[in-house]
Amino acid sequence: MTIPVDILKHRHAKLAAALQSAGLEAIALNPGPSLHYLTGIEFHLSERPVVCLFRAEGAPVLVLPELESAKSRNLPYELQAFTYPENPREWLNAYEKAVQAAGLRASAGKVGVEDRVLRLLEYRLLKQAAPEADWVNAENAVASLRMYKDAAEQAAMQKAVDVAQKALEATLPLVKIGMTENEVSAELMMQTLRHGSGKPPFEPIVAAGPENTANPHYFPQGRKLAAGELLLVDWGASHDGYYSDLTRTFAIGEVSAELQKIHQAVQDANAAAHAIAAPGVTCGAVDKVARDVIEAAGYGKYFTHRLGHGLGMEGHEEPYMRGDNTLPLEEGMTFTIEPGIYISGTGGVRIEDDVVVTAGGLRSFSDMPREMRVVG
Amino acid sequence: MTIPVDILKHRHAKLAAALQSAGLEAIALNPGPSLHYLTGIEFHLSERPVVCLFRAEGAPVLVLPELESAKSRNLPYELQAFTYPENPREWLNAYEKAVQAAGLRASAGKVGVEDRVLRLLEYRLLKQAAPEADWVNAENAVASLRMYKDAAEQAAMQKAVDVAQKALEATLPLVKIGMTENEVSAELMMQTLRHGSGKPPFEPIVAAGPENTANPHYFPQGRKLAAGELLLVDWGASHDGYYSDLTRTFAIGEVSAELQKIHQAVQDANAAAHAIAAPGVTCGAVDKVARDVIEAAGYGKYFTHRLGHGLGMEGHEEPYMRGDNTLPLEEGMTFTIEPGIYISGTGGVRIEDDVVVTAGGLRSFSDMPREMRVVG
Repeated sequence: MTIPVDILKHRHAKLAAALQSAGLEAIALNPGPSLHYLTGIEFHLSERPVVCLFRAEGAPVLVLPELESAKSRNLPYELQAFTYPENPREWLNAYEKAVQAAGLRASAGKVGVEDRVLRLLEYRLLKQAAPEADWVNAENAVASLRMYKDAAEQAAMQKAVDVAQKALEATLPLVKIGMTENEVSAELMMQTLRHGSGKPPFEPIVAAGPENTANPHYFPQGRKLAAGELLLVDWGASHDGYYSDLTRTFAIGEVSAELQKIHQAVQDANAAAHAIAAPGVTCGAVDKVARDVIEAAGYGKYFTHRLGHGLGMEGHEEPYMRGDNTLPLEEGMTFTIEPGIYISGTGGVRIEDDVVVTAGGLRSFSDMPREMRVVG
Repeated sequence: MTIPVDILKHRHAKLAAALQSAGLEAIALNPGPSLHYLTGIEFHLSERPVVCLFRAEGAPVLVLPELESAKSRNLPYELQAFTYPENPREWLNAYEKAVQAAGLRASAGKVGVEDRVLRLLEYRLLKQAAPEADWVNAENAVASLRMYKDAAEQAAMQKAVDVAQKALEATLPLVKIGMTENEVSAELMMQTLRHGSGKPPFEPIVAAGPENTANPHYFPQGRKLAAGELLLVDWGASHDGYYSDLTRTFAIGEVSAELQKIHQAVQDANAAAHAIAAPGVTCGAVDKVARDVIEAAGYGKYFTHRLGHGLGMEGHEEPYMRGDNTLPLEEGMTFTIEPGIYISGTGGVRIEDDVVVTAGGLRSFSDMPREMRVVG
């Protein structure tokens, strides 16, 4: 999305405050959602190292390849750009100039980075350019901004959910016994684009049968849909750079009472989490209420992952809905609720929704039926 | 693609030899193409750190989340796996065990990493687990294997090119004056999937008009197609994890003599590179022959990037077709030939093909017409 200049400037001011309170001289960001969030510029993460340095005061300083220099021109805010030509031996020179311009060349202070995004490629250049600086993980500095979605961001996420739901509804009538997981996945991805999605955030996980559905991070491997088994679909869409990430689990024809019981337990856990999540409730407490439901049903040890994760410009981001996370929810936070039960040899069920914390409690972006529907 | 076990074992043996000749005790790979190439296992790059340690002798050692542990079971080769639960405080413990098992816990030797893929997230854990080791960039160790594509890999790339070309041919009749760049991009992506592509390697670059076509790494921003302007389409498909990456530039209606001249110069440069590339010719020499054509036409300073890049499991990989690259081409190497001329305010032209070096010279996977076709 094109980010209005006043929103960019507001974010710069909030980041500056976050840097100051964290005792950071600057933060160095390479291509990824945080860089886009703060600059409005889109870069691919490539073999050419790109870094932008943000400080508490002064314009951001960007290092980028000459051939992308157009991206640093005619911006609606001040930015200092240093470019390098195609020969990698020229990279360090540009990094040294940028670090100098940012006042970090001889600094022995703390400079923040995002451990989860910054690669050794950029890190080694930064370290050579500012050898005395202390490069510390400061993911929270940007995450603490990005975690709160404004109205435009929430609208984009709602749209990404709407598109994804419509795409699956358009796909379901085409799902037949004998199709492969991969055929369902391809059809769903096509429907996702047809319904107006940007580049899908990930290839749909379409898992069928007692082993594949029980593998939470499965990649489709060609199993054919067979009657009496489960079909798990984990899919998403994007709109203006914001993601949806949903899961529903279906019965292929009629399934056993045990599979129905498992599905019901997951559905109840999902509902319990929706019911409790609200401002002031901790992430851990939301995880616990869902986990308690599944434990009471006798399946506790088969709920092998956290309840959910933050969602926005990334498929997984802050806040993480983990039992040990004492962060209290606040208005504008967006995350997934996705309890699951995975029994290898029997089957796996997950029901995943995307939600936003509101003043009054919680609003679910997703509203597709959660009960076990029959396909095939 | 499911990689046959004999091919995986062959790759392990070649990697072991590469490690020994580079004086490396091991190489540590996180999720990305190299890890998949060597293990056959697919991982998303996520907030949960995954690393596999390969040594010159002994089974690979993998650290992964418990919830993905199914991926490390029933493999057709020996592998030692260490898992961690959902709490990030448990990560280091698993890393320490893995590093111990790989014999690196107290090592002061060199351990290779891929600077372009490894993040600080994994690097800090590895460093804490083996504090004396010297973590050196060893991208070449795996790149030197991956650079040579075997018959199955070449067949997958040919398929990825075929699918992409068919998708663009199906899109072109729908392209009309007044459509936006983004509408063309969405239609092309849908056609790419309809023609059998896996997840497209990147969102198509569809650029229209005198400014946007002149920005080599443009992202579509809604400009409407107008008569007398250029339309540049840079797109790709995937098949079994292998990519295509192509560009063609079209005239929207009739365009000026200057734009025609620019297009002809790029087309001639593309042809010159095709004609010279063969075993023994250096990457730099191929770049030079194309650059000479564009310089002779008077546009040298507007060809702002290298001639091309390796292509395979990544959009950009070794070998890079850069003027200063003295690497001689060898049979099985695959790369792009993509000369371009970019004149801001006038327009930009790029013609990109995907090719493989053969015993006799070069084979082009792509064969769509390269002359300037008229659309709209």
